[in-house]
Order: sequence, then structure tokens, then C-alpha cells
Amino acid sequence: MKTLSIGIAGLGTVAQGVLALVAANRALIEQRSGVSVNVVRVASRRVKPEVDLCGADFSTDVMDLLADSRVDVIVELIGGETLAKELIVGALEQGKAVVTANKAVIALHGNELSRQRLRFEAAVAGAIPIIQALQHGLVANQFSALSGIINGTCNYMLSAMENEGVDFDAILARAQALGYAEADPTFDVDGIDAAHKLTILMALAFDTDFEFDKVYVEGIRALTPIDISYAAELGYRIKHLGILRSSPDGIEARVHPTLVPHSELMAHVNGVLNAVQVVSDAAGKTLFSGPGAGGAATASAVVADIVETALNPQQPIADRNSSAAMTVRPIEDISSAYYLRIPTRDEPGVFAEVTQILSSHNINIDAVIQKDSHPQGGSVDIVILTEDTQEAQMNKALSQLEALATVTGPVMRIRVAPQD
Amino acid sequence: MKTLSIGIAGLGTVAQGVLALVAANRALIEQRSGVSVNVVRVASRRVKPEVDLCGADFSTDVMDLLADSRVDVIVELIGGETLAKELIVGALEQGKAVVTANKAVIALHGNELSRQRLRFEAAVAGAIPIIQALQHGLVANQFSALSGIINGTCNYMLSAMENEGVDFDAILARAQALGYAEADPTFDVDGIDAAHKLTILMALAFDTDFEFDKVYVEGIRALTPIDISYAAELGYRIKHLGILRSSPDGIEARVHPTLVPHSELMAHVNGVLNAVQVVSDAAGKTLFSGPGAGGAATASAVVADIVETALNPQQPIADRNSSAAMTVRPIEDISSAYYLRIPTRDEPGVFAEVTQILSSHNINIDAVIQKDSHPQGGSVDIVILTEDTQEAQMNKALSQLEALATVTGPVMRIRVAPQD
Repeated sequence: MKTLSIGIAGLGTVAQGVLALVAANRALIEQRSGVSVNVVRVASRRVKPEVDLCGADFSTDVMDLLADSRVDVIVELIGGETLAKELIVGALEQGKAVVTANKAVIALHGNELSRQRLRFEAAVAGAIPIIQALQHGLVANQFSALSGIINGTCNYMLSAMENEGVDFDAILARAQALGYAEADPTFDVDGIDAAHKLTILMALAFDTDFEFDKVYVEGIRALTPIDISYAAELGYRIKHLGILRSSPDGIEARVHPTLVPHSELMAHVNGVLNAVQVVSDAAGKTLFSGPGAGGAATASAVVADIVETALNPQQPIADRNSSAAMTVRPIEDISSAYYLRIPTRDEPGVFAEVTQILSSHNINIDAVIQKDSHPQGGSVDIVILTEDTQEAQMNKALSQLEALATVTGPVMRIRVAPQD
Repeated sequence: MKTLSIGIAGLGTVAQGVLALVAANRALIEQRSGVSVNVVRVASRRVKPEVDLCGADFSTDVMDLLADSRVDVIVELIGGETLAKELIVGALEQGKAVVTANKAVIALHGNELSRQRLRFEAAVAGAIPIIQALQHGLVANQFSALSGIINGTCNYMLSAMENEGVDFDAILARAQALGYAEADPTFDVDGIDAAHKLTILMALAFDTDFEFDKVYVEGIRALTPIDISYAAELGYRIKHLGILRSSPDGIEARVHPTLVPHSELMAHVNGVLNAVQVVSDAAGKTLFSGPGAGGAATASAVVADIVETALNPQQPIADRNSSAAMTVRPIEDISSAYYLRIPTRDEPGVFAEVTQILSSHNINIDAVIQKDSHPQGGSVDIVILTEDTQEAQMNKALSQLEALATVTGPVMRIRVAPQD
């Protein structure tokens, strides 16, 4: 039996989940893995006398974990960037292993951290063992594309908007009341959290640096129930996806609302669930879904990483390709099919004007919805699904469309999921 | 860099997939895992001069692999039971590690094999790293239920029956023509292959012996497009599932056609895909899907196991619970909701007779479909969805129903997926 002494930094939901899980399933974990996990110290600024520390010592200074020579593995669950990074760097320098659930610190500072003794399964997609899948279960595969629903808040809100036909603001208020969204929801609904996770997946799947600032990011604030309903009519569900694709021209790394065809399993991942789909040369298309957040679910991934730390103390660190060889492509370069909702005056000839502009940019139309005019306004939506076209071309077409006198407002543009 | 010398027994589709994958992705595998895989000998009764052996020696006797002292890992891909078992036993006795894709030999003879150096990820659900998930990614979890689409042939056939409304025999002929079903389809369509895989999942998830003969098995031969269509009307898709559930009374282990609600991700796993859903105490409900068969997809799992053999040479072998503590429950003991299609004469009072029999066995009705009578026959289907009831009670009720003069044929009974 290998024995690991761990020190936990933080005493929030996830840390409490780890303490509870290690206590509840100790025998099971030992039996399955041959690894015994002992929590020797917990450190948190805030004392929480109601939490059972399972006999561990307690400190209010997380740096005490570095000083405790018994600690083999530091489990960083304090969140944030500055102190967390300081703790991780200190631990790695001392030769301690580190397990963290902190996506921001890895996505933003991962390049400065030695990765041989650092694990962060819990930072991406909660309970889903996606990093293990990439590094072990699918180890023999070259990956060509990954895509994922990696923010449960967005997915909950989109599912609710679809099921109930209510708008963004109403659902946001409810998500906040239910604890699925923060008081300041920016991180989730503007796609930053998803971009952090996508940055991590990109580094692992395509062996790049952590390049958060090269990920294209769009959130879900602009989406309306009418778009969700038009998309359904066309055979799609709108999901907030992180998308990675590799080609000889470089890597696409983008987070945005996406039309996913009903025929894809990803379209049926609803509510707070997360899912990651991996396209690879031997294994083909695999998909992994599960809870992306929550104390117990995240703790499941943290404890799995702790056990792996004992089984495989030294991770091989890939010789990373130079960034020149693996350029992240600007969004203007990508090709995609697009959903366009164009609000127009209900007048003869408008449809011809619209299609003429698209045609002049070599944008082909795949499907169209044109509804009867709103009785009150004399305004009508033209909804178009295009074939694949380059984003730069689409941007030019949109500028011209929005300059038309008969187009009454901004065009809603949503990318369609690539066919991988 | 750890180096492993492997010997491959067999030269069929999967073996060729392994050779091709190791050759194509050698550098990638080394970079990610720190493990170098060298094929030193391939043994197969049939010489296939068209296959590139990547410089490996060739034998026509698979037992030559035991005699080759260079071989660290024997990869058993010959299938069947007798010779495969002999080879595996011999290898383990010599201290060689074994990787196999052979579900039958593990499900039927696994109890006689030492498991410390034996791996069989490829034996269950092809490319999906489900065994790794159970043993590593979800290592901290107590599992309460697993269910899965673990036979791609059945899933292909059911999807095609639904999409095209054609019957079992027509789809079977096409599946055979496409190579999705064998000339003798018994193994797949009667559920035996799925039961082998479920036996393996049961042993791993619930720490039992391999108890193939205790798994309840029903295939898909009796299913008709009309049942698929009624199920859809009730909000369900019919899938051929393997189901495991643990309770204080023992383990349920059963393979049969199952109504899965459209709200479940599992209902949307279509075509030849496989999927396994795991319900556990910390991670909640996770689902893993992907190709369940095929040379390259299976090779992905085989090579992953080879790499794990280098990383973790000795697997901890659980002290298995006594079979008394983990009884597999007989099918008569389980509780389930049921779909019943009862062919009846189109006469007044028939529905009352039917419901009276169900009621006399305390079987409550959840939903009913009663269609207009067929113009030609004067016969009508009564379709009933029941609430949970014990299988033994249901059997009694079915006997009485089928004895009614107004019931014109056997009652079709399909279990509904448990709500886990």
C-alpha cells in the first residue's frame, strides 16, 4: 500500500467535498488503487468549525502547508490567481506534488509552472475524467478536433430558455437564485470560464503552450428565445461550445454559441451537464459527459488526481512544439457555416437584396426561413443558414447587409458546429 | 523512456489495427506517456504477406510468443476460448503481462486468471476507455448503477428499424451485408456478446467474480417497428441495454431491450455507437460514448492498455467480497416499469378485463395508448405503460392476460429503464 499525506488549501465547497469523499470511501479507494490518502493539514483563511477535518491539523495561513514536511501533495482549492500561484510554485520547488481545480491559474500561468508533478483534472469539466482520457485512455491517438459544453451555467440557461421560451435576463436571475450563476455572472455568461478550460484542453490535446489570449471568445448574452426556436426549426439546438480543431494551417480555438444538429449526441446534453467530444484518428468520435461543477463532482476528479500522483509520480513532459509550428488561427481565418437572422422591413425585393449581397461574397445559402410579418410592426425576420464560408468574407457581407435601408437592426450571426 | 517489447497473437482486423497504430503514432505515444512500444513477434496461424509487421518476427504458432524471452507483454487477439486461455495462462505464469480484447475468455474464465498483470479495456465498448474510468478517473466513487449500449450490431439494427420502419429480418440481412453482423448473428442479436461485456463491468464496478451465468439475457429478435413507434409516442426510444444496479438485496445484472426516455442522453446514442453510463456517489451521472468495434477503435484501447502495463506494472487486486455478500438477484426479484402491447379483439369490455387483471396484481397504469381497430382484422393493440412492479407479479399478470379469450396473441413486454 502506498501512502500519501496531503495538505488541502481552502475550505470551500470543493475542499469540503474532498474531505467527505476521502472519509467516506477510504477503504474502497485503497482496495481499487492500492493508495492510502491521509489528510494531514487543512489551511484556510476562514475557520469553519462545522467542517470535520478528519483529524487533520488546521492553519489559517495556506503557506503553512509548504512548511509541513509531512505533506507529499498540496491540493490547491483556494481559487484566484496570485496566492494560488505562489502556493503552487512553492510546492513544486520543494518537490511536493500539486493537485488543483483552479482553471484560471493553469490557463493564465500554466507556462510558468513545471508540469511533471502538477495535475488539474478537476479544472476542466468537473467530474468528467477528460484529461485522463486524453493522456491515458486515448494515449495512442492523434486528435483532430475537440469540442465541448464546458460551462454548466451557460448550458443550464440555454436549456431553460429553450424549454420555457423566456429571455436571457429572466433566466439569469433564476440561475443566480439557484446558485448556478454568480452575482457577477461575467465569467460564465461571457465565456471566460469556458475559454480558460479550452486553453487547458488545447495545451493537452495539441501540445501547445497555454495560450488563453489567443482563444476567440463570445458569450451568450445576445441569444434570444426566437433564435433558439428558429434553430430548432432548422434541425439544430444552440449550445455554448468550446471548439478546437487542428489543421496544417494551425489550430482553431474558439468559444461561442453554436448550432449543433439534433443528430449529434452533443445536442442532447442539457441542463447543467458538461460534455467533451474528442475526434481522433484511431478511436474516432468519443464523447464524455457528466456534472461540470459542484463540490462532490469536483472532489471526484481531485481525489482521482491525488491517487494518480501516487501511481505515476513523474509525468512525462512533452517536448512542446514551437508556437510557430502550431499557430492559433485568428477567427477571421476560420471557415464555418452560419445562421443569420436578419430583421428587415416587410417590403417586396428585400429578400433579393439580401441574397444578392451574400452571393457577391460567394456565400451560398443552405436553408431559409421567412415568416409572415409581425402584424404590429411591418418587420420580418429573414433567417438563413449558409454553407461554409470564411469568417472574413462573412464579416464583409454583414457590414453591407446592415447598411441596407431595408435592414432594420443588427444581424444575429451564430456559427454552425463543424462537421468533424 | 520505458521500453516494452510486445508479442501479438493473431493477425485479424484488430491486430492489424494495433500494428498500424503503433507504427503511425509511435513518436506521439512516446512523447505523451514516456513509453516506447516495440512489436518483436507476431504469431498467427494464417500467414498474411500483405500486412506490414514493422520488422517483427513471425510465427505460425502463437505459443512461440511464450518461448520468445524478449516479449514483455503478450497481446492476445486470436479470439475464442481454448487456445486464448492457454496462451494467457502461460504468459501470466511466466510473469509476462497480458493485454486482450477477448470478452468471452474474460467473462467465462476470468475467475481462473490472475488479474495483477492482465488488462482487457478493449473487451468492453471498443474505443471507450470505460475500464480506465472505473479504475482511475472515478476511482474515488462508489458505483450504484451502470447501464450501457454495449453491442453496436443491436444498436445499429434498432436505429435502422426506427428510422425506416422495417422489420428485424430485413435489417439483419442488411447488417450482415454491411459487415455489422456475422453470418450467425446469435452472439449479437440474442444478447450473449452484451452479457459477456456486462459480466466484465459487473466484476470491475461491484467487485464480484465474473458471473456470466447469473446475467439475465434477452435479445432483440422479438422487437417490431410497431413497438418502436408506440414507444416513441410515449416519449421513449427502445435500446438494447446492459443494466447493473446495486442495492442491499444484491446486484441486478440484466441485458434486454429497454425503453429509455428521450430526456436521457442514452436515448440519443444511435447507429453502431456504444455508450456506458455510470451512476456514482460523488461524480453523479457520467456517460462515455464512442465506437464499440472496428479495427482502429479497438486498437486504440489495446495500445492504451499496453502503455498502462508499462506505467503501472502491478495492478492492485481487490479483496473481492464473498459471493454471499454480493448476490446477483434473479430476474423475478427485480422491480421495473413495463411497456405492454396486448393484441386484443376489438370488442366492448376488453380494456376493462385487462386493467382488472393488472389491478388484481397491484400493477398501476402510468399511460395507455389504444388505437382504432385495424379495418381488416377487428383486432386492436392495447399499449400500457405500468408503474414499477415486481417481475414475478408481472409474470403472473401476463399469464392471466394471455389466457383471456379476448387476447389474440402473446403480450409484448419490454422493461423501462430504471430511474437512476
